Amino acid sequence: MDSIVIVGIGLIGGSFAKGLKRLFPESRIIGFDKDENNLSEALQLGLIDEKGTDRTLNSANMVLLAIPVDALVNELPKILDNVSDDCLVLDAGSTKAAICQSVENHPKRRNFLACHPIAGTEFSGPSAAFDGLYDGKTNIICEVEKTAFKLQEKALELFQKLGMRIRYMNPEAHDKHIAYVSHLSHISSFMLGKTVIREEQNERDIFDMAGSGFESTVRLAKSSPDMWTPIFEQNKDNVVKSLEEYIKNLESFKQLMEENDFKGIHDQMNNTNRIKQILKGIPLTKTPK
Amino acid sequence: MDSIVIVGIGLIGGSFAKGLKRLFPESRIIGFDKDENNLSEALQLGLIDEKGTDRTLNSANMVLLAIPVDALVNELPKILDNVSDDCLVLDAGSTKAAICQSVENHPKRRNFLACHPIAGTEFSGPSAAFDGLYDGKTNIICEVEKTAFKLQEKALELFQKLGMRIRYMNPEAHDKHIAYVSHLSHISSFMLGKTVIREEQNERDIFDMAGSGFESTVRLAKSSPDMWTPIFEQNKDNVVKSLEEYIKNLESFKQLMEENDFKGIHDQMNNTNRIKQILKGIPLTKTPK
Repeated sequence: MDSIVIVGIGLIGGSFAKGLKRLFPESRIIGFDKDENNLSEALQLGLIDEKGTDRTLNSANMVLLAIPVDALVNELPKILDNVSDDCLVLDAGSTKAAICQSVENHPKRRNFLACHPIAGTEFSGPSAAFDGLYDGKTNIICEVEKTAFKLQEKALELFQKLGMRIRYMNPEAHDKHIAYVSHLSHISSFMLGKTVIREEQNERDIFDMAGSGFESTVRLAKSSPDMWTPIFEQNKDNVVKSLEEYIKNLESFKQLMEENDFKGIHDQMNNTNRIKQILKGIPLTKTPK
Repeated sequence: MDSIVIVGIGLIGGSFAKGLKRLFPESRIIGFDKDENNLSEALQLGLIDEKGTDRTLNSANMVLLAIPVDALVNELPKILDNVSDDCLVLDAGSTKAAICQSVENHPKRRNFLACHPIAGTEFSGPSAAFDGLYDGKTNIICEVEKTAFKLQEKALELFQKLGMRIRYMNPEAHDKHIAYVSHLSHISSFMLGKTVIREEQNERDIFDMAGSGFESTVRLAKSSPDMWTPIFEQNKDNVVKSLEEYIKNLESFKQLMEENDFKGIHDQMNNTNRIKQILKGIPLTKTPK
């Protein structure tokens, strides 16, 4: 019987647990979480079969770390210290360079596969977890050549069964691109929320006048600061660069408006409209109601 | 038999037509559109019963103008010139001050009710129209006191039957608030799309790494430049002001990052998280598949 350990049993870890339980009903899922309430809730919800103990890691066949990226760089080396030689260790961090560096010279580096499943919702905690979160989503794998061949194979088979498609990148390219397509979106959303909340002291006004377009653009501002602060910290240089370019584009839009160059404004929007074609390929997450 | 004229038979006008046809199956819906293809498509889709002619307005009981706001300020006075004394004329423009000004001294001002239904999707054209678009949505009405009492009553009964809730505002307050909760969202989305497209010349990279969070924040960048350019032009002062504040907030976020003040970054996000509670009240548009 396979023993699968999940460290951090929130949306990401919990959804992984649900998928595994469906695929391998006979496996034993064991959870760790620094928040004892989360852990108890996960047990109650049936996401995990039991809570982990000191001796859990030793006998694990697979370990998934689904914790904030600052905790990840601290915990990953310790986890590797304690697992057996044929245990597969996976992460799900939104940054990859610092995480890969943290175990670069670890004697058990070959047990680890660096992953970033591009999946999630703006919700968090065990109750947000659902089976199907990973279906049709991309999983970005970094430094695949540093993982033992048998463990690569095991992981890929699992991802395939979960319905994921795989892309291979190096950690630096991952962190650069993800700053643009994910991290920047979160900042634009948080700051849009801040701008509107500050202007509209009387929140009823926001509520009454806001439509689904506003909801869509500020949705990510519901995200967890505990999860996102360390992501911005670890990917600081790329995020600051993307933010600079975003601000520059906003400034130039503002300038066109101030100069009454509405032909230019029209062009700006027209040129960006091709996002339609690009977006067609993005699988949307449908959370179960 | 009621004769209802819809000028501009796209998403907004077409969805209105569908709702009316359900509520008043015996009414005759007559369409105008400067794009002959749109008009023919609307006829084919059954959104309208016939195309309008020179004599249509004269016998209309109700006219809805659902055209870009620059066309609206030109067409509205001419429409009023041609309708009968008991015809109700409605608009659906995303700005209100310039539109109300355009008919301020019109002899038939009392036939007009200035409306902004907060409803829409990022799609446009007759094929995007669907019944139910207005259900549960807010309709902002401006200068209600300038509309004939009987026509107010007629309009309110109709909006109620379509499932809309009504809010009254003056045009200046409308334009100021809507800059924050709608117009600014569109700019943030367009410029986010532009930033990412420019960085990612190889569009496959965007496509593969982007998740539903990115999709959500750039969704509005699919919107029609023909519709949005005149909105930004008419609401220039308010939009520029909201954009300035947004840029200021982004700059200060960037500065906190550059100064490694991640406690400050956490606080910024934490303070904006209450958008969760605010958003709970926003009715989402579910487009039929």
